[in-house]
Amino acid sequence: MASSKIEIRIRYGETDQMGFCYYGNYAQFLEVARVETLREQGISYKELEEKGILLPVRNYSIKYIAPAKYDDIIQINTEISDIKNSQIIFKYSIYLEQKLIATAYTELVFVSKENHKPLKVPDDFKFLTEIINK
Amino acid sequence: MASSKIEIRIRYGETDQMGFCYYGNYAQFLEVARVETLREQGISYKELEEKGILLPVRNYSIKYIAPAKYDDIIQINTEISDIKNSQIIFKYSIYLEQKLIATAYTELVFVSKENHKPLKVPDDFKFLTEIINK
Amino acid sequence: MASSKIEIRIRYGETDQMGFCYYGNYAQFLEVARVETLREQGISYKELEEKGILLPVRNYSIKYIAPAKYDDIIQINTEISDIKNSQIIFKYSIYLEQKLIATAYTELVFVSKENHKPLKVPDDFKFLTEIINK
Amino acid sequence: MASSKIEIRIRYGETDQMGFCYYGNYAQFLEVARVETLREQGISYKELEEKGILLPVRNYSIKYIAPAKYDDIIQINTEISDIKNSQIIFKYSIYLEQKLIATAYTELVFVSKENHKPLKVPDDFKFLTEIINK
Repeated sequence: MASSKIEIRIRYGETDQMGFCYYGNYAQFLEVARVETLREQGISYKELEEKGILLPVRNYSIKYIAPAKYDDIIQINTEISDIKNSQIIFKYSIYLEQKLIATAYTELVFVSKENHKPLKVPDDFKFLTEIINK
Repeated sequence: MASSKIEIRIRYGETDQMGFCYYGNYAQFLEVARVETLREQGISYKELEEKGILLPVRNYSIKYIAPAKYDDIIQINTEISDIKNSQIIFKYSIYLEQKLIATAYTELVFVSKENHKPLKVPDDFKFLTEIINK
Repeated sequence: MASSKIEIRIRYGETDQMGFCYYGNYAQFLEVARVETLREQGISYKELEEKGILLPVRNYSIKYIAPAKYDDIIQINTEISDIKNSQIIFKYSIYLEQKLIATAYTELVFVSKENHKPLKVPDDFKFLTEIINK
Repeated sequence: MASSKIEIRIRYGETDQMGFCYYGNYAQFLEVARVETLREQGISYKELEEKGILLPVRNYSIKYIAPAKYDDIIQINTEISDIKNSQIIFKYSIYLEQKLIATAYTELVFVSKENHKPLKVPDDFKFLTEIINK
């Protein structure tokens, strides 16, 4: 299994007047979570882009169970659940003090920086496919 | 049918180094779209909060079909598709020059500002229920 | 004088738990204001970048006099106050219902997209120099 | 001297199409830096708000010397340079790999959560005044 756990502290600027972390900010937290998941597997997303491969999000869904507040440290558990054809799928569970507060799903596509056309899974990701299917 | 059409121009700060509007920023565009949809129906979300009713998002999903870029003017068509129990559902279609570039769904819950417990649909929204079911 | 007036409505996601528009979001409003100021003078910032000229901010200062809140419509009066050597200076006054709530200053530099080195003022901006010095 | 050093990694969503960290995002980094500076001195900004004291920014200025890019880890050195009357001043130096890339200044005001009127410096901050003046 290819997975990771990261912690993020909610910034003041990420709250809204409801006193909660604004729902739109989670997309950025998830982006950090998946970049760190890849980094733990030895893959630098930055270098991937430098090689001409982009990884835009094609589908994103999130279920908010309970709010996070200012200064809270949330924990994001990320798992790469599938890699095939041109896509990679990440699943996330977000916790606040051991309590599940959100779950999320993102589907990203490998595309060429040149023409934005889908690419097959890069060689660097092949070993991940094996890990996932174990 | 309770619906609206709004236009939003992509700000420079909303782009990312891929040269696209960052995927996380759409949540804010959709928030603007549903507030304007309510306003067109005579409902001020600001006043709703002042009356002690909050409307946090419980479920959000979005499908990105094609990117929006800097300075692009996107059009968001929003429809209130259901109001019942404690929830209100909005569906969105985002266009760029008549081309569909994203579709999205949000489910929001009426909760009390005091204790964050779910509330039944406020009276101000009753007439919308009738419009929707027509 | 090269100036413009624009209006921006504060989004929910731009508020913080203080109940004000977060101080960091003004930078984006000012960016919109200066792009619109240039557009009114017939200059598209987007096209400028396509020609290989970037305009990053080198100095930025802002004085907050009173807060803006959710759903408020702020008015930004922008003036190009100087263009010379490689730089262009914008000054801003932000109003809420005729009351001055902030003043700001930004100094931007014309640089090459290729090597990020400063460029002299592009020809497209020459006529502005004359307008400003009148 | 009351000071701190923190590190922040630039998120993808914080870049813009120039390929740099967007100039408006630094305000949020500085907010994190000053909250951590206070925390190191035993002061929780969160608890300060819970006691009815807000600390909005009144003046903010920043000089950008060189850009930060995606995935860069910037280091922010923060110093509380003055506390008197109702205000507290923070000065910041931002480094990327030992190279100074920005300097900034913020002036914040202690105000009452109730009526937004200025307050004198809270007792919790008195010991800081002595440290600073040493």
